Amino acid sequence: MSKKYDIDNLVERFNQGDKFALARLISLVENEPEKAPEVFKHFHNKHHNSYIIGLTGSPGVGKSTITNAITKRLLKEGKKVGIISVDPSSPFSGGAFLGDRVRMTEISLDPNVFIRSLGSRGYRGGLSRAVLDVSLLYEAYGMDVIIIETVGVGQSEFEIYNLAYTIIVLMVPGYGDQIQMEKAGILEIGDIYVVNKKDLGGDDVAAQVDLMLDDACYETGWRPPVLMTNAITAEGIDELIEYINDHEEHLKLSESINEKKKERFAYKLKELISFKIETILKTIITEDEVERITKEIIAKGKFKIYDIVFNIFNEINFNI
Amino acid sequence: MSKKYDIDNLVERFNQGDKFALARLISLVENEPEKAPEVFKHFHNKHHNSYIIGLTGSPGVGKSTITNAITKRLLKEGKKVGIISVDPSSPFSGGAFLGDRVRMTEISLDPNVFIRSLGSRGYRGGLSRAVLDVSLLYEAYGMDVIIIETVGVGQSEFEIYNLAYTIIVLMVPGYGDQIQMEKAGILEIGDIYVVNKKDLGGDDVAAQVDLMLDDACYETGWRPPVLMTNAITAEGIDELIEYINDHEEHLKLSESINEKKKERFAYKLKELISFKIETILKTIITEDEVERITKEIIAKGKFKIYDIVFNIFNEINFNI
Repeated sequence: MSKKYDIDNLVERFNQGDKFALARLISLVENEPEKAPEVFKHFHNKHHNSYIIGLTGSPGVGKSTITNAITKRLLKEGKKVGIISVDPSSPFSGGAFLGDRVRMTEISLDPNVFIRSLGSRGYRGGLSRAVLDVSLLYEAYGMDVIIIETVGVGQSEFEIYNLAYTIIVLMVPGYGDQIQMEKAGILEIGDIYVVNKKDLGGDDVAAQVDLMLDDACYETGWRPPVLMTNAITAEGIDELIEYINDHEEHLKLSESINEKKKERFAYKLKELISFKIETILKTIITEDEVERITKEIIAKGKFKIYDIVFNIFNEINFNI
Repeated sequence: MSKKYDIDNLVERFNQGDKFALARLISLVENEPEKAPEVFKHFHNKHHNSYIIGLTGSPGVGKSTITNAITKRLLKEGKKVGIISVDPSSPFSGGAFLGDRVRMTEISLDPNVFIRSLGSRGYRGGLSRAVLDVSLLYEAYGMDVIIIETVGVGQSEFEIYNLAYTIIVLMVPGYGDQIQMEKAGILEIGDIYVVNKKDLGGDDVAAQVDLMLDDACYETGWRPPVLMTNAITAEGIDELIEYINDHEEHLKLSESINEKKKERFAYKLKELISFKIETILKTIITEDEVERITKEIIAKGKFKIYDIVFNIFNEINFNI
């Protein structure tokens, strides 16, 4: 069976809604990015749009439990949900506690849910490329909603604000990093702020965030709400879903959804171009070459590194 | 005053040990990476080596207090210390609490200490490029020890294990992320493990880490020690310094220090090449082009993105 035939066959089954084919195609574009064009050319006539939600917060704030609760609500509405987890401490990614994993297993068995976890490093062409491709596959598959769960902000290789339409920032009571929030840039990226584990308190955190948000200015006119949830008992989840819908509505009315889409594809485009160039470059400067040049740098003195690289590039011509 | 003259003049003062000139040169390579070759060509005849220590851990574990305590000890030995902080919650970076900041100010006034904090995003050519260039400048300046303080592991844009010779992983009692350690890859990168804030307990954490480390295998024969400190009272700091010296000795005897140096420059080389490519790319595909192509992608259907990029590359020739 040739590889060509294999992709055609997978796509056929994918188009019939076969989850196994979806899983296989994801693995394919994940591990062999150079196959992506061959996969995506089958979808040229598709025009399905998914709504993309980003969920971010430190480890332990309950991102997976919230994802789980949101997904269950969306399933009740008859929606298809694709989940991408890029959090190494997430139960989706095989981390965290047994209780979480049990909850996750429950939704993952639903025919209208698909979960994919991506590690946090080692992707050829970068993690963002992988996340973007999986989200494109979810769209082609017909997912109504895509939830991207990611840890931390500002120091991640992969930044959800280039990808998601609604970004939910998750916090917990007394976590101690509230003071750092402003520094970490968290208050600039959220569309909705959620203080989870409200059974442990957290009114002060919610009030503090609310106050800080008052100081910001909102170009598009959306003032991020702050709400409290207890994801385990699903308390506050209905309200959260309402806010997500409100934000989607807002983006559509203000036409900023088009801006968001443009950002998403501009990002993807740049990622793709970089990947292409990297691939071309690797044929020019091989691992052996890197080894040789590194030795040269150490022998000649490390401060000559810039000169040495400059000389390599002098030998390469880029013509258009 | 021409820019050319400016750099020459700054380098002259830099070579005389002027901290202000060091600060200016750091800002220069930080903000205008294309000027770096011009700066570093002045150092072609320098061969000073600094010993590079990486310090990593979650926010709040006391990285800055440990850095402060280590630095004070090194100063007593007559050493010059350069500190690079890439932790957004660090007092070096202007975050954290007043008490920390006071402590930092004390060492930063010492003529043999220089502290530079780098934000966690927005660097042209990437954060790692900036960190690498600052460490090179510290080496040229004649620092005996460079301490790179960084938050988290495995999800950071910038990974210290490509740069530091000795990596210290910092933990605290009852922080709750011990269970996640193995998943997060923390147990693979440390050369020394420190449980700080021992006044709050932590014997269990130290024992747990010690046990986990027993299961690993150590190619170079270095079995990472686990020790407990209280950085505020400097308890355990002497022991930590001894372990750092032991590890340095080990690296030299086993000749793995050369491997580490090779890794560092291979990493730098790849970073530089990527940056060069990015620069070239910007001349081929301008922001206007990105805008135009993005619109084309949205109009033609997002799944055609791969075809569209393929066509762009068909028009570019790479010659060597």
